[in-house]
Amino acid sequence: MSLTTDFNDYRQRMNERVLAYNNKVIKRFFNLDTNAYQAGAVPVKVKEMLGLACSLVLRCDDCVKYHLGKCHEEGLTDDEVFEVFSIANLIGGSIVIPHFRRAVEYWEVLRAEAALGAPGTHQAATHPPHEH
Amino acid sequence: MSLTTDFNDYRQRMNERVLAYNNKVIKRFFNLDTNAYQAGAVPVKVKEMLGLACSLVLRCDDCVKYHLGKCHEEGLTDDEVFEVFSIANLIGGSIVIPHFRRAVEYWEVLRAEAALGAPGTHQAATHPPHEH
Amino acid sequence: MSLTTDFNDYRQRMNERVLAYNNKVIKRFFNLDTNAYQAGAVPVKVKEMLGLACSLVLRCDDCVKYHLGKCHEEGLTDDEVFEVFSIANLIGGSIVIPHFRRAVEYWEVLRAEAALGAPGTHQAATHPPHEH
Amino acid sequence: MSLTTDFNDYRQRMNERVLAYNNKVIKRFFNLDTNAYQAGAVPVKVKEMLGLACSLVLRCDDCVKYHLGKCHEEGLTDDEVFEVFSIANLIGGSIVIPHFRRAVEYWEVLRAEAALGAPGTHQAATHPPHEH
Amino acid sequence: MSLTTDFNDYRQRMNERVLAYNNKVIKRFFNLDTNAYQAGAVPVKVKEMLGLACSLVLRCDDCVKYHLGKCHEEGLTDDEVFEVFSIANLIGGSIVIPHFRRAVEYWEVLRAEAALGAPGTHQAATHPPHEH
Amino acid sequence: MSLTTDFNDYRQRMNERVLAYNNKVIKRFFNLDTNAYQAGAVPVKVKEMLGLACSLVLRCDDCVKYHLGKCHEEGLTDDEVFEVFSIANLIGGSIVIPHFRRAVEYWEVLRAEAALGAPGTHQAATHPPHEH
Repeated sequence: MSLTTDFNDYRQRMNERVLAYNNKVIKRFFNLDTNAYQAGAVPVKVKEMLGLACSLVLRCDDCVKYHLGKCHEEGLTDDEVFEVFSIANLIGGSIVIPHFRRAVEYWEVLRAEAALGAPGTHQAATHPPHEH
Repeated sequence: MSLTTDFNDYRQRMNERVLAYNNKVIKRFFNLDTNAYQAGAVPVKVKEMLGLACSLVLRCDDCVKYHLGKCHEEGLTDDEVFEVFSIANLIGGSIVIPHFRRAVEYWEVLRAEAALGAPGTHQAATHPPHEH
Repeated sequence: MSLTTDFNDYRQRMNERVLAYNNKVIKRFFNLDTNAYQAGAVPVKVKEMLGLACSLVLRCDDCVKYHLGKCHEEGLTDDEVFEVFSIANLIGGSIVIPHFRRAVEYWEVLRAEAALGAPGTHQAATHPPHEH
Repeated sequence: MSLTTDFNDYRQRMNERVLAYNNKVIKRFFNLDTNAYQAGAVPVKVKEMLGLACSLVLRCDDCVKYHLGKCHEEGLTDDEVFEVFSIANLIGGSIVIPHFRRAVEYWEVLRAEAALGAPGTHQAATHPPHEH
Repeated sequence: MSLTTDFNDYRQRMNERVLAYNNKVIKRFFNLDTNAYQAGAVPVKVKEMLGLACSLVLRCDDCVKYHLGKCHEEGLTDDEVFEVFSIANLIGGSIVIPHFRRAVEYWEVLRAEAALGAPGTHQAATHPPHEH
Repeated sequence: MSLTTDFNDYRQRMNERVLAYNNKVIKRFFNLDTNAYQAGAVPVKVKEMLGLACSLVLRCDDCVKYHLGKCHEEGLTDDEVFEVFSIANLIGGSIVIPHFRRAVEYWEVLRAEAALGAPGTHQAATHPPHEH
């Protein structure tokens, strides 16, 4: 198991458990979360950059991983990701640095897996519909 | 070792270490924390729901586990716990979701252990006096 | 104008402005927020206590005012409100104290206005449907 | 005095006071803050959207005002701004709503002043180099 | 009324209101807060610097004002205060800057009032026992 | 591998990866972070106590570990460290307690390793220049 499959498998398995309880507010909240990142006046790529920056300043490692996966799917370059990182580090301060280090580690795994894998297949496998 | 015994054993062992240093402010703070959750105008069950909701919006996994254990002892149903979860997710936002997933996992372990165990015994064993 | 009418008038006026932009995610989010506090397995009174405690530990003065208004409508006594305050201060720490002082000031205005007003009328006037 | 000039005048006056103390770390930090938002692999417009979203989830009214001013200069439309708002509200939760209301009020002042003013003049006057 | 007397008068008046409710947890918490800053292995001056830095990174204007008042009583120089500010800004990030500006404004009022006042009198008048 | 070497090795390895991307804002931010803790009007020992207290109230385990390592190098006694802990717990509240427990565990490992090791050697090995 890799860092990415561990993360995605746990998220998917627990999301199914969560939704099995049939709490309507939770179901609608998860659904709304998916809708918020869909294409609109702001393109998906920028929305995922927003999600990544907010996740970093709020220091949530899992949220950072999720949005890094999405940013990777959207084709962000290293330079683009690092400019998002730099703004998030400045806004959030040095308290963000340990989360930033883990973000870079995860980004490098995403890049390495993409280099190894058949083109176009990793996305469908690892990133189910937006549910955080 | 299970998720619950791992958590409780570490907490108990380290609380003993912490208190061994004899810092008076720390001792009184831990003691005050125990008192705040005792029965008063607001019943213990509601106080533990408050502790759970606050722990979720502040995104502290260990605090969530602690208060989930207490909520379980107080006999909260799945529906009640999920209504607390739904309010905490809405107030705290999607950044709470990864902590919510781990909370559901822990809640299910508590339920499974109670289903297996002799009635009335798990509480005494796993939940010593309130010290977070 | 009093502390309560200032707060409620601004909130109501700006909520109308916000919703006029017709952003679907925002509209559904505000709607979901209203639903989360409706009666269910957990009674409205307890849900508003959860909202109050979470607002205090997250240190949002306006959210505290909103939920204090609702707690007042639900008939919370001074003792009940102060037990919620005590748990929120302990969980959130002394950084909560300035917000706690403003909460007490607002609570006293709510109590004073209720003592002056015709019974049963202040609620309808000052607390429109839940929108934060 | 309007909401925008009050904000900008205070910020500019106090930034001058702050820098007068000649603390090198502070000076370099303010300077670095300016550099982070300059054009690079990510365009200025997107960087200011990142700044706005992060400011909202961290619930800093002054930071929100600052980045709204910049987003306005970058020509963001109502729809674009509201999609940033919607993502920030979802990530940060309902605790963000009071700050969101104040953000909408400030955005409407910016729009109204631009409608009244000579084209191209308000920016230079109200938004000095990036210093937060 | 000045910035300092406004702040201290409101704090003192509301602290009296708060304590009048006789909630034991609150009373003990306020008392513990006073004790924590008393001289021990760490001198009072350093403890107040800790209080100031923590208040800034947690972005609580009133807590910053309180600890600035205490740091002023402890005789901190401009250089010392600005080194505390610089560490707090770096750790907490640019989101701290608006609170930092207000801190500098308050610091300058404290310095100006001390320059005008009779030596040794302002402290007793403006800074009652530690209660935040 | 011990708790301290695990932590330091990962930090050092990832800092090298981070800096390899050559993002200028990041490089200058890391450099500024190192400078902020150097001796000035406030001694290094006090600056590290500030870093420790801020890391605790912001609840960042890795930042706590880093500053505990530095506080240990600066020769802080148990009493001094526990007075910093007590202020941080009071300001940040009981939500800090799980991080406080892990801090005490790490502090005891630092003390135990120093007791075993050759005097003066552990610092150079485990604490490279300040980069968080």
